[in-house]
Amino acid sequence: MATAFVTSRRVEFSDTDAAGIIHFVAFFRMMEQAEHDLLRSVGLSVMMPDADGTISWPRVTSKCEFLAAARFEDVLQIEVRVARLGERSITYAHQFLRDGQLLATGEITAVCCRFRAGSPPESMPIPALFADKLRPFLAA
Amino acid sequence: MATAFVTSRRVEFSDTDAAGIIHFVAFFRMMEQAEHDLLRSVGLSVMMPDADGTISWPRVTSKCEFLAAARFEDVLQIEVRVARLGERSITYAHQFLRDGQLLATGEITAVCCRFRAGSPPESMPIPALFADKLRPFLAA
Amino acid sequence: MATAFVTSRRVEFSDTDAAGIIHFVAFFRMMEQAEHDLLRSVGLSVMMPDADGTISWPRVTSKCEFLAAARFEDVLQIEVRVARLGERSITYAHQFLRDGQLLATGEITAVCCRFRAGSPPESMPIPALFADKLRPFLAA
Amino acid sequence: MATAFVTSRRVEFSDTDAAGIIHFVAFFRMMEQAEHDLLRSVGLSVMMPDADGTISWPRVTSKCEFLAAARFEDVLQIEVRVARLGERSITYAHQFLRDGQLLATGEITAVCCRFRAGSPPESMPIPALFADKLRPFLAA
Repeated sequence: MATAFVTSRRVEFSDTDAAGIIHFVAFFRMMEQAEHDLLRSVGLSVMMPDADGTISWPRVTSKCEFLAAARFEDVLQIEVRVARLGERSITYAHQFLRDGQLLATGEITAVCCRFRAGSPPESMPIPALFADKLRPFLAA
Repeated sequence: MATAFVTSRRVEFSDTDAAGIIHFVAFFRMMEQAEHDLLRSVGLSVMMPDADGTISWPRVTSKCEFLAAARFEDVLQIEVRVARLGERSITYAHQFLRDGQLLATGEITAVCCRFRAGSPPESMPIPALFADKLRPFLAA
Repeated sequence: MATAFVTSRRVEFSDTDAAGIIHFVAFFRMMEQAEHDLLRSVGLSVMMPDADGTISWPRVTSKCEFLAAARFEDVLQIEVRVARLGERSITYAHQFLRDGQLLATGEITAVCCRFRAGSPPESMPIPALFADKLRPFLAA
Repeated sequence: MATAFVTSRRVEFSDTDAAGIIHFVAFFRMMEQAEHDLLRSVGLSVMMPDADGTISWPRVTSKCEFLAAARFEDVLQIEVRVARLGERSITYAHQFLRDGQLLATGEITAVCCRFRAGSPPESMPIPALFADKLRPFLAA
């Protein structure tokens, strides 16, 4: 496997639900946050303005498998890898661990788009800048 | 008191927390949703595009007092009144009831602003269209 | 296909993000809400207390494919079917439509568990009551 | 003023809305998170189980004044002080700053309660342990 980018999140009270554990959508929120942490760590952002508008990355698919519950105040270690680096889209793969125990695994596929005021988002080839900076996290 | 606008929301599972009751931020979210329901009921919207950009309403203050807990699947009746109709801002007053019992009361003050791409929001006088349609909900 | 259960949600302002469209986690939240609407429509609930504690349904996997963006105040029609009715788990399949256009499709698999205070959730066979009431929504 | 407890949060993409700025409920969520960070920093938690059930702190009132907008990826410094340490309730006062600029100020009042399974939460005097550890943050 490639070198993973590693970040972490603590389960906040607002992430929990009446079953007493983390609510499942919190995992999706944290997957996206971890992706954005990765981008920031290499000087990129999920929203980059340029002369022509903004380059951003709408999600086209996401999934998560929940193996064990997390609770309020647990610190979750989140590993992010690039599972696939396409011409126009990237698939990020995530693993959530708590003290070495795997709690959840997930994926997000996002497509590179140009946003211009007043027009719908338009798919575009991934700029070389992005591809070059994300290649080190590409799974073998 | 003025005629209140009345709407409702059910407490969703994602609104609850590990204490087994509704999480307090859900009340703020529902206060805003009820304000938007009121606007929609008179043909307005909290984001109205026109030739010059968009008119929208950033919040400048909000508060809520919580009198009794609500639980998953409770249906909350939300009454909204206009507590103050200023030159450039509106204060909405909210009451949450469940089967006639008052659960919470709150307020949101929002200021009328013009949004133009690339500029910070700019405060503006409330258009007559808005003021006229909201006056019927103004508390005496 | 089986008769779908149909419900709807409006895209609230708090469901949107800085890209100007619905945030992807809102679809997961609405998928769960639609499941709970279905259960409620047949007299069930995702959290049912009995003499032994509470029967509830932790999620074990969820996914969603996003085909087109939704915007603030769009009304989304949500169709829910039972894709698989197992011994201990149920897979719900969801379709989101706006004016007949398919916006997203997703799935949630939830496992039937007993919750007792102070013990971890324990998987259990789905009670006949649940299976009987959900069978009409089972995809052929 | 008393020594403030200082923590921080980055504005996540899921905290933003279609106006392109942080959604106002994110401030309330972060106020609560900052309170919990403070408690954790002195060895306490907002949910503490003991032989009799759990001691927790339902909110009875909260407010926030928004002075300037925050945007995606802004890092917010959050200062928390104890504005009032009562017999049965605590009022926390919050200030949000970005690069020294005050963005928002808010308050949360929470009441000390015992939670027992199957009974409604019951107000109780604040244990000496809590009061002693929070007194250093009490505003003069």
